[in-house]
Amino acid sequence: MAEQDAVKFGILGCAEIARKVSRAIRLSPNSTLYAVGSRSVEKAAKFAKDNGFPDSAKVFGGYDAVLDDPDVDAVYIPLPTSMHVKWAVLAAQKKKHVLLEKPVALNVKELDVILEACESHGVQFMDGTMWMHHPRTAKMKEFLNDPQRFGQLKTVQTVFTFAADPEFLENDVRVKPELDALGVLGDAGWYNVRACLWAFDYELPKKVTALPGPVFNKSGVLVSCGASLYWEDGKVATFHCSFLSTLTTDVTAVGTKGYLRLHDFVIPDEEDKASFFTRENPGFAELQRGVVADRNEHVVATDLPQEVKMVMEFSRLVGIIKAEGGKPEKIWPTFSRKTQLVLDAVKTSIEKGFESVELIS
Amino acid sequence: MAEQDAVKFGILGCAEIARKVSRAIRLSPNSTLYAVGSRSVEKAAKFAKDNGFPDSAKVFGGYDAVLDDPDVDAVYIPLPTSMHVKWAVLAAQKKKHVLLEKPVALNVKELDVILEACESHGVQFMDGTMWMHHPRTAKMKEFLNDPQRFGQLKTVQTVFTFAADPEFLENDVRVKPELDALGVLGDAGWYNVRACLWAFDYELPKKVTALPGPVFNKSGVLVSCGASLYWEDGKVATFHCSFLSTLTTDVTAVGTKGYLRLHDFVIPDEEDKASFFTRENPGFAELQRGVVADRNEHVVATDLPQEVKMVMEFSRLVGIIKAEGGKPEKIWPTFSRKTQLVLDAVKTSIEKGFESVELIS
Repeated sequence: MAEQDAVKFGILGCAEIARKVSRAIRLSPNSTLYAVGSRSVEKAAKFAKDNGFPDSAKVFGGYDAVLDDPDVDAVYIPLPTSMHVKWAVLAAQKKKHVLLEKPVALNVKELDVILEACESHGVQFMDGTMWMHHPRTAKMKEFLNDPQRFGQLKTVQTVFTFAADPEFLENDVRVKPELDALGVLGDAGWYNVRACLWAFDYELPKKVTALPGPVFNKSGVLVSCGASLYWEDGKVATFHCSFLSTLTTDVTAVGTKGYLRLHDFVIPDEEDKASFFTRENPGFAELQRGVVADRNEHVVATDLPQEVKMVMEFSRLVGIIKAEGGKPEKIWPTFSRKTQLVLDAVKTSIEKGFESVELIS
Repeated sequence: MAEQDAVKFGILGCAEIARKVSRAIRLSPNSTLYAVGSRSVEKAAKFAKDNGFPDSAKVFGGYDAVLDDPDVDAVYIPLPTSMHVKWAVLAAQKKKHVLLEKPVALNVKELDVILEACESHGVQFMDGTMWMHHPRTAKMKEFLNDPQRFGQLKTVQTVFTFAADPEFLENDVRVKPELDALGVLGDAGWYNVRACLWAFDYELPKKVTALPGPVFNKSGVLVSCGASLYWEDGKVATFHCSFLSTLTTDVTAVGTKGYLRLHDFVIPDEEDKASFFTRENPGFAELQRGVVADRNEHVVATDLPQEVKMVMEFSRLVGIIKAEGGKPEKIWPTFSRKTQLVLDAVKTSIEKGFESVELIS
């Protein structure tokens, strides 16, 4: 792609995660770091300098100025969740494509306002769920879709936890009721829910039931919780997310004939490759003296980190719209919306004392 | 141990699992295959011949005769669960020590009748949960108890599934309402519940809540289900057991500092060694570009299979009672009873539409 065709990104805010995504934009061949806005222009300038923005990059003392710059094609929004609806809608109105950090909204009603704005203004929407874009994810899906090696998916169990320190548990953006009221459910749980939906081909579960035992911080924000999702015919998933346990990011998917697991689904242990493990058609040996199975570790190399792949895919879609006047790809907002629907149902179930919440797609 | 001091086993019935345990008794240096009873003496004789019983072994055309033989020290009872209370109580009354296949009873009320009979007659009781006796299990417990490497246990997730064929799902002993009314919950779920209790040092959960989505066969017996167990402070466990998915026997335990997993907890993949995997004090690398952790595979060798270790431990306890007139070891009936209490609560929760059931120890 010619330099001038690269999608020009403006970044709203200098969140920690914006450092990682700035690097991804820098490494993405069809994207360029064009502008960054912060509440203070000094902070924006420092962020640009620290994160490899080109000297020509614009730095602004506010978010509005980024949206008002006619050369900005797309914005990456890593602001606290409570600010998403305002800034994502404004971005769409200014015809900026929107790469929105997760959780995308505080609830699906807010998200629908964002998605409607994006649709009516013809801009691409995508959330920042990086692991979706790792080539490992496609390879795993091939396995899950294989009727001989995996059969029909029956169960998913997934955990995403990390041990936050006491300061985080009271003061981090992710546990402030006015900034990220979904707490760990919106942060880690987002990934668990996405993993379940991904495995079940984005079919929404019929019922969502929170598990007893959620933990809240002093401000009443969730710091540990879980839920079970129910489809039909014994197809179920459970997840647990927490800021109170050590770093664990596991997915196990069990089918009628095979099984898949991985232990670094959110962020691969290494940048240039990632593994998943399968077992096909296992059975007990004679007298159940062991297990006979075809076991495999699948190592999937990637030329670029998953977050770069994410930016590239987003910019590819933006490029098509820009060049050909095409319509935005709907698959990405659909994935975001389904994830948010399940999150909302978990929250409702907790509020209703762990009653099952029925989902209507 | 001198040959004559070996514990003399009588086996009630010729169930498939009795073949495995007969081998275990044969390989156990402090145990000997002494008698087997079946509904037909021919069947008993064939079983004895096929399973390496010594020529001197007695074969009986009934279970009573085994219990009436004054030289039988202990019985192994692999009969269908609905017959446990009758035969285990009779065995205790005849002063036979009782190694009882799991699930030990259809409910805790029945189990209490068995346990009271064993206690009042001074005989040892143990259930047939083999993995408890693998040296790997003790090694794993060391890790879970390590405050530096593992910290405080927060979460357990466990799955035990295997794919039964249509014939099994309608006609196997384990899914016949008059023989094993607990179905998959008593069979595979027994192991899941035990794993959760084991990990949480046998502290009973405060609440047990069945997960939506249980599946029943045509006779109304469970063939797939799951539950969540709740202790306090965000300490939770979930399990899933099923006859409808491929063979999977996983346990994941997540602590505040470390994490443990294994994928063959019920029956090790190999007889002479077994692995478990740990991760200690993991953290994200700079910019979350990967994960830094101390990862280990722990391989634990065993000179004898876990079921032999089980028989040896049982016979060791029986030997002490025989030689020294000591009292039975209470730890094993306690583990069985707690497991049964949780199973009962899962069943009740399903019957009550997935209401939480409070447990009082």
